[in-house]
Amino acid sequence: MRILGIDPGLRTTGFGVIDKQGQQIAYIASGTIKTPDASLPERLKVIMDGVAQVIRTYQPDCAAIEIVFVNVNPQSTLLLGQARGAAICGLVDADLEVAEYTALQVKQAVVGNGKAKKEQVQDMVQRLLSLPGMPSADAADALGVAIAHAHGGDSRARLAAIAPDLARKGLRVKGGRLV
Amino acid sequence: MRILGIDPGLRTTGFGVIDKQGQQIAYIASGTIKTPDASLPERLKVIMDGVAQVIRTYQPDCAAIEIVFVNVNPQSTLLLGQARGAAICGLVDADLEVAEYTALQVKQAVVGNGKAKKEQVQDMVQRLLSLPGMPSADAADALGVAIAHAHGGDSRARLAAIAPDLARKGLRVKGGRLV
Repeated sequence: MRILGIDPGLRTTGFGVIDKQGQQIAYIASGTIKTPDASLPERLKVIMDGVAQVIRTYQPDCAAIEIVFVNVNPQSTLLLGQARGAAICGLVDADLEVAEYTALQVKQAVVGNGKAKKEQVQDMVQRLLSLPGMPSADAADALGVAIAHAHGGDSRARLAAIAPDLARKGLRVKGGRLV
Repeated sequence: MRILGIDPGLRTTGFGVIDKQGQQIAYIASGTIKTPDASLPERLKVIMDGVAQVIRTYQPDCAAIEIVFVNVNPQSTLLLGQARGAAICGLVDADLEVAEYTALQVKQAVVGNGKAKKEQVQDMVQRLLSLPGMPSADAADALGVAIAHAHGGDSRARLAAIAPDLARKGLRVKGGRLV
């Protein structure tokens, strides 16, 4: 199963693609989609088209995106929301099923500690995927989301069998608990 | 020139289509795109696909969307942002140029008073477009955005000629001032 992970942002959207076979995961690709200094509609188009381009190139089977949370000010929150909406549009337009994970879930899955620092996530992503170098923060976050989905995939499938409504809402079961 | 106006929302997105010929405007269509109680990605797909469907049906030449602003809480702001992002994706995916107007600009254009109440906007939209009945609040807001664009279109064209950067950012000149 090939998984596309997305770390959304208005200026920089990170993407990471991994393959999962049984319990093994392998790195395929990662990078960033950067938007120019243009009008908001133009920037959202760059994000959506960029995600579509990544999907055409790497043909993932499913996708996962980070649940963002900022509260600097309402204006930034609104901008980030629109960027995330555009990234999700790129995913659903390609008929990919989209799972959602909080930063806490990603850190838990990658580092085993929901309060891990950004550098720890980068470091563990590099180790888990046997990368020759440290990935950029945006790419590492996106790869982390893909890894979280790879870890949670089985639980999600189990959940889908017993509670499809919850599974559709992007929730998953871990250790018998809903997270 | 046919204008599509959009009033974005996660649950209900209003749309309104008008024709502008010289200083005359005429009603073509209006309605709402409602999302089901599903996962966020599924709901965003309904909004984007709904906007695409409206564009296929009414073939507008350009689009305008309301600049939303809420500060109930960061979570609602984020959700509304994502819904607006999905609506804009539907517009830019059809290669429509998208202008943006604040609620204040819409009220100013429709009622002549930036502090007008919702009912006044509905009432004036009904009069300006000679509608047989009162439009719903969502449809009226969307038609109001289209009307604001119809009024501002000439100024925008002038602005595009003298300052394309500002024009691309959705700003416009009214009475010699940038608004």
